[in-house]
Amino acid sequence: MSDIYWRKIQHLEIVVNRDVDFKDRCEEYFRDIILIHQAIPGFRRDDVDTSTRFLGYELKAPVMITGITGGARETLDVNRRLAQIASQHGIALGLGSQRPILTSNFNREVVETYRVARDTAPNIPLIGNIGFNTLKTLGVQEVKQLVDSVRADALAVHLNPAQEAIQPEGDTDFSLETLSVLREVAREVGVPILVKEVGNGLSYEVVRKITAETGVKIFDVAGACGTSWVKVEMYRTADDVRKHVAQVIGEWGIPTPVSIIETRLASPDSTIIASGGVWDGLRAVKSLALGADMAGFAKPVLTRLLKEGFESASRFVAEYVESMKTVMFLVGAEKLGDLRRIPVVV
Amino acid sequence: MSDIYWRKIQHLEIVVNRDVDFKDRCEEYFRDIILIHQAIPGFRRDDVDTSTRFLGYELKAPVMITGITGGARETLDVNRRLAQIASQHGIALGLGSQRPILTSNFNREVVETYRVARDTAPNIPLIGNIGFNTLKTLGVQEVKQLVDSVRADALAVHLNPAQEAIQPEGDTDFSLETLSVLREVAREVGVPILVKEVGNGLSYEVVRKITAETGVKIFDVAGACGTSWVKVEMYRTADDVRKHVAQVIGEWGIPTPVSIIETRLASPDSTIIASGGVWDGLRAVKSLALGADMAGFAKPVLTRLLKEGFESASRFVAEYVESMKTVMFLVGAEKLGDLRRIPVVV
Amino acid sequence: MSDIYWRKIQHLEIVVNRDVDFKDRCEEYFRDIILIHQAIPGFRRDDVDTSTRFLGYELKAPVMITGITGGARETLDVNRRLAQIASQHGIALGLGSQRPILTSNFNREVVETYRVARDTAPNIPLIGNIGFNTLKTLGVQEVKQLVDSVRADALAVHLNPAQEAIQPEGDTDFSLETLSVLREVAREVGVPILVKEVGNGLSYEVVRKITAETGVKIFDVAGACGTSWVKVEMYRTADDVRKHVAQVIGEWGIPTPVSIIETRLASPDSTIIASGGVWDGLRAVKSLALGADMAGFAKPVLTRLLKEGFESASRFVAEYVESMKTVMFLVGAEKLGDLRRIPVVV
Amino acid sequence: MSDIYWRKIQHLEIVVNRDVDFKDRCEEYFRDIILIHQAIPGFRRDDVDTSTRFLGYELKAPVMITGITGGARETLDVNRRLAQIASQHGIALGLGSQRPILTSNFNREVVETYRVARDTAPNIPLIGNIGFNTLKTLGVQEVKQLVDSVRADALAVHLNPAQEAIQPEGDTDFSLETLSVLREVAREVGVPILVKEVGNGLSYEVVRKITAETGVKIFDVAGACGTSWVKVEMYRTADDVRKHVAQVIGEWGIPTPVSIIETRLASPDSTIIASGGVWDGLRAVKSLALGADMAGFAKPVLTRLLKEGFESASRFVAEYVESMKTVMFLVGAEKLGDLRRIPVVV
Ligand SMILES: Cc1cc2nc3c(=O)[nH]c(=O)nc-3n(C[C@H](O)[C@H](O)[C@H](O)COP(=O)(O)O)c2cc1C
Ligand SMILES: Cc1cc2nc3c(=O)[nH]c(=O)nc-3n(C[C@H](O)[C@H](O)[C@H](O)COP(=O)(O)O)c2cc1C
Ligand SMILES: Cc1cc2nc3c(=O)[nH]c(=O)nc-3n(C[C@H](O)[C@H](O)[C@H](O)COP(=O)(O)O)c2cc1C
Ligand SMILES: Cc1cc2nc3c(=O)[nH]c(=O)nc-3n(C[C@H](O)[C@H](O)[C@H](O)COP(=O)(O)O)c2cc1C
Repeated sequence: MSDIYWRKIQHLEIVVNRDVDFKDRCEEYFRDIILIHQAIPGFRRDDVDTSTRFLGYELKAPVMITGITGGARETLDVNRRLAQIASQHGIALGLGSQRPILTSNFNREVVETYRVARDTAPNIPLIGNIGFNTLKTLGVQEVKQLVDSVRADALAVHLNPAQEAIQPEGDTDFSLETLSVLREVAREVGVPILVKEVGNGLSYEVVRKITAETGVKIFDVAGACGTSWVKVEMYRTADDVRKHVAQVIGEWGIPTPVSIIETRLASPDSTIIASGGVWDGLRAVKSLALGADMAGFAKPVLTRLLKEGFESASRFVAEYVESMKTVMFLVGAEKLGDLRRIPVVV
Repeated sequence: MSDIYWRKIQHLEIVVNRDVDFKDRCEEYFRDIILIHQAIPGFRRDDVDTSTRFLGYELKAPVMITGITGGARETLDVNRRLAQIASQHGIALGLGSQRPILTSNFNREVVETYRVARDTAPNIPLIGNIGFNTLKTLGVQEVKQLVDSVRADALAVHLNPAQEAIQPEGDTDFSLETLSVLREVAREVGVPILVKEVGNGLSYEVVRKITAETGVKIFDVAGACGTSWVKVEMYRTADDVRKHVAQVIGEWGIPTPVSIIETRLASPDSTIIASGGVWDGLRAVKSLALGADMAGFAKPVLTRLLKEGFESASRFVAEYVESMKTVMFLVGAEKLGDLRRIPVVV
Repeated sequence: MSDIYWRKIQHLEIVVNRDVDFKDRCEEYFRDIILIHQAIPGFRRDDVDTSTRFLGYELKAPVMITGITGGARETLDVNRRLAQIASQHGIALGLGSQRPILTSNFNREVVETYRVARDTAPNIPLIGNIGFNTLKTLGVQEVKQLVDSVRADALAVHLNPAQEAIQPEGDTDFSLETLSVLREVAREVGVPILVKEVGNGLSYEVVRKITAETGVKIFDVAGACGTSWVKVEMYRTADDVRKHVAQVIGEWGIPTPVSIIETRLASPDSTIIASGGVWDGLRAVKSLALGADMAGFAKPVLTRLLKEGFESASRFVAEYVESMKTVMFLVGAEKLGDLRRIPVVV
Repeated sequence: MSDIYWRKIQHLEIVVNRDVDFKDRCEEYFRDIILIHQAIPGFRRDDVDTSTRFLGYELKAPVMITGITGGARETLDVNRRLAQIASQHGIALGLGSQRPILTSNFNREVVETYRVARDTAPNIPLIGNIGFNTLKTLGVQEVKQLVDSVRADALAVHLNPAQEAIQPEGDTDFSLETLSVLREVAREVGVPILVKEVGNGLSYEVVRKITAETGVKIFDVAGACGTSWVKVEMYRTADDVRKHVAQVIGEWGIPTPVSIIETRLASPDSTIIASGGVWDGLRAVKSLALGADMAGFAKPVLTRLLKEGFESASRFVAEYVESMKTVMFLVGAEKLGDLRRIPVVV
């Protein structure tokens, strides 16, 4: 198995079985965001409407399974089942990094591990995925081809400097020049671009810069509250010094609630996905009340899928959406837009 | 046994035996409300006067056993003994939801399980009880009949959207239209209406709305510090998704001290009962110092009654009132009114 | 043995062997008072001068063993040894409540249990002791006689409403009228009056009132950080209701650091003794930096004396004073007066 | 073995094997200093440049092993290996107190235990070391000789009043007069003077005074977050009273982050070394962001050296510097100077 495939399998294994979650006070951060119980919501709980439009699709809930996997043969089944779940519940789905497609030179079998998602779920927004530092090596045509190969509705560009700094194979070139590539791609590629972190959060400064220089209008904050990629890579690296560095920065990053606020301030009219430990419907609604438009997650649905099977993973999404609805009911928000008008105490 | 009776028995059983209390920081909330010790109170401890008037009765202490039960045959004895205790100590008593009376079409035996309270305790304020969402199905005449059937001095209308959202049989219609029914009932029914939560607290917004639109002037905040009905219903529900939702919102609600302040701000001249974890005389006096007029509780007296018997439950009330008196003594408040003038540090 | 003697023995036994300390956040209160380390103190540690004048005596350190015992035959030896320790270290000594002298009608043996202190230690300030509520029953002549009988240099009047409220024999008459007795006594008795709490703290309001109405100028704050008399009496009372009340108010009171500040604000030119958990030299210096003039303690020296013997108790005082000196050295305070000029961060 | 040598060996042994670290909230202090993750740093991680000039040398990183040992024969090897490590990694090295050289009257073997450092590492800044209270007994010529004997590039004068107060042999004369000796030495000795604490921190007041009266321009804050010398001496002292005092002030001192800020405020244009628990690269970068110019440590490199050997100690420094680089990368600071411009949330 080539290195890049093996890495994908390792990632799944480590995320599911090891302790890779942020510990440091994120529980506290979310708990300190207080929504107000309204004993007369003013409507029926079943009237709660979580439907929203995203990338031209009607979603049943403002929820996204964010980019996870693809490439190695074993991931085909994962993507197929995630697509089934997303389709079943009417939510968006992200693919994992498509770099394996590039390195395999668009090998059919490799492409298939991603494309299975679209084939399985024609009715939901599907988001492609590529790294910011891979982008600098590509022309617009190649990016187009990448998107087309999986028939994605948008392309997520992930920023992961902390992960790359620990990862044995890491490419840590995060020069500003890549922003001009991003601008060109955003203008020419024909689908919207989403910029995301992978678990250390987006800052005000970064979102400002991207908005100003590239016109990108969709962000996934992927803050430091859920899966810590530094911890994941710590388990993979053999190098003692990197292992140590990983320990030192294992809790590094901007907590998700803070990142939501910073991103919203930096880009008032963008679409913001809140992810990074947004693992239940209460945190989801809090995130929306703070200014996000959608909630996203990766680890919990994956863990359920690999450890407990399809039913459990699917039920996770059902429970998530039902919790969102109940919390919206209890704060008196009948529609998503109402969440912008409810009191939030921080 | 019909469903509704069985539910009542289950409720008693779960509340008394399972872990259904709020955990989240309410201890802290109450502890952070600091009353100032006055080493020279200025009078004798035995001069402390806790007497007050409520619904035309003279109470020995501003205390109420809030609505608990009724309906199933087994509850008759509970209500009888609660009435004895209330009568003995000169405090107010609430009945549990009278819906079983409606569903049984005023069956004599069912009515008896409530009416036993008045028969036992003619000398105390007795408060009937019905759900906000049941109200919408009733005419004023029916409500009158409901109040008369138990010879109540007032009618409590409970708001419990969180409970209904978890409860298998839950009715989650909390539309604003019901407010106009409430207004009409309040105007016509002939006894005062009390609006209460059941453990998630009343917010400023809700109290404002009720005050403005219905003229109701008695509130029981029933805040999120004591019994969590979401947790109670979690034990009852068989449905996995609802169980999950219950876990997510098990600590949901407005802490009692916050709810007292919000309610007082929203309705400066109403009578406010502080309940929801107001389980000892120190918390009771703190609640009064924050703006409440009376303190109430349900779970502790019920637990003592069912687990340790009448004497223990009665002693609970005695201890409660004695603690209130000692705390009032130590803050230099000889009468209840003085509690409005003492310093409170939050 | 008469009741009052037996009570004294019980008190010693409970304080020394049971858990009667305040738990609630006083550790935190003291820790949050931060003194600044000065790496160049500007003098030699042995130059630190803790000497001060109190009641006409030159003390080696601004320290007092506050009122503990007397009455029962067994207490004679305690007072003798406390006097030896105080004399040895040049600090002040308080006697326990002299009520047994009154109730015994100045019985010689009873008086002797107190007077042993003066006989043992002619060179230190000795402070008599009587309860505020006992005072109301006495004429100035009787109070004079009380002071003279033990040859005290001052008389402490203790305020202990919380203790009296729990104590089976408690007298809870703390009417304001007694203040006029206190004023007269203060004017006529011929020795200075010290007003003290016993572990629940003096408030701004109480100190203001005493200062304004009686002219008393010495206060011992006895705040809620060390020994809780409510807890002590909880162990003694047989009455279930009082036991419960004691549990509810076991942590009641004004923390010592807060009480120091309130007392200083209320009486800028009085002599303030900081006691109530001021159990080591660091807390003592912090108390002085907050505005106190002296530090006091009761339980730790008593416990050492009764459990480990004279040497240990005496060493406690030595360690206490040495710690004070080292801390004064490290904050750059050569004399006590310098403590008023050092920065304190709260 | 003479006393002073024996003491040096004891110090090493205690620091390495006993619990001598500060516990009190320094973890919290450092954690509350928040640097902002920048998902697009704007350069390559390998472009991070930590080089700096110090005392005329080019350092690979702004890092110093602060003064540890010398004197006893056993310390020669320690200093040789520390010098190898410092040289290998291009960082500065401090020697332990040179008092043994004075007391041995410049005995060749004693001098050799220090001089081995320069012989081993000609390419790094080497800092001599003497106590503030030893200084008062020396003339400028003697100090010069001391510096020359080890061929140091600068001389550290350490302030350690807390340690001296506990140490059995302690000299606690920290009179202001010694400042004039320091001024003269600073002017005449021919190498720069560095003033340092040993773990209780420098205050604003002390740094102001030194700057104003002596012109010294290099400070090592040595704050209260890492090794507590009071605790070290507690293990050494046999005297019960001092042991007690040590317990009382074991957590005494100014936390390192606070001391950095105070020192920078008091001396805006000095060179500041942040030490005292600055034990990893994240704390190092936080310290630099707070205003320090370099980071220093003693205990961790020593412990690694003595317990795990040369390789481990050397790797500690490598890991430290690599962590610094990664953190600088993640906050978008390509050069040390950039750390003055990044946002710091406290
Ligand atoms: C196994 C796994 C693989 C992932 N792979 C990618 C990826 O290839 N590209 C990407 O942008 N994010 C990737 N992520 C990051 C997630 O999209 C998400 O941002 C992050 O895990 C935070 O969400 P969580 O806390 O819900 O897990 C991956 C996450 C997991 C758990
Ligand atoms: C067993 C039980 C049954 C209850 N039933 C009712 C009810 O029928 N109607 C109602 O308004 N509240 C009901 N309550 C809620 C209480 O009146 C009260 O608002 C709530 O329990 C908070 O008080 P606590 O923390 O002292 O228990 C019930 C409470 C308990 C413990
Ligand atoms: C055994 C014992 C007996 C006491 N008796 C008296 C007393 O008779 N009169 C009085 O004013 N205070 C009395 N006190 C209270 C102390 O003087 C002091 O105010 C209180 O204990 C707080 O100080 P501490 O925390 O150092 O113990 C007594 C304390 C103890 C421990
Ligand atoms: C074993 C040992 C010996 C030390 N000896 C000296 C010394 O002789 N002179 C000095 O100025 N500091 C001395 N120090 C203090 C250190 O230089 C440093 O200021 C202090 O340990 C705080 O840093 P740390 O927390 O990284 O250990 C010594 C430290 C250790 C651990």
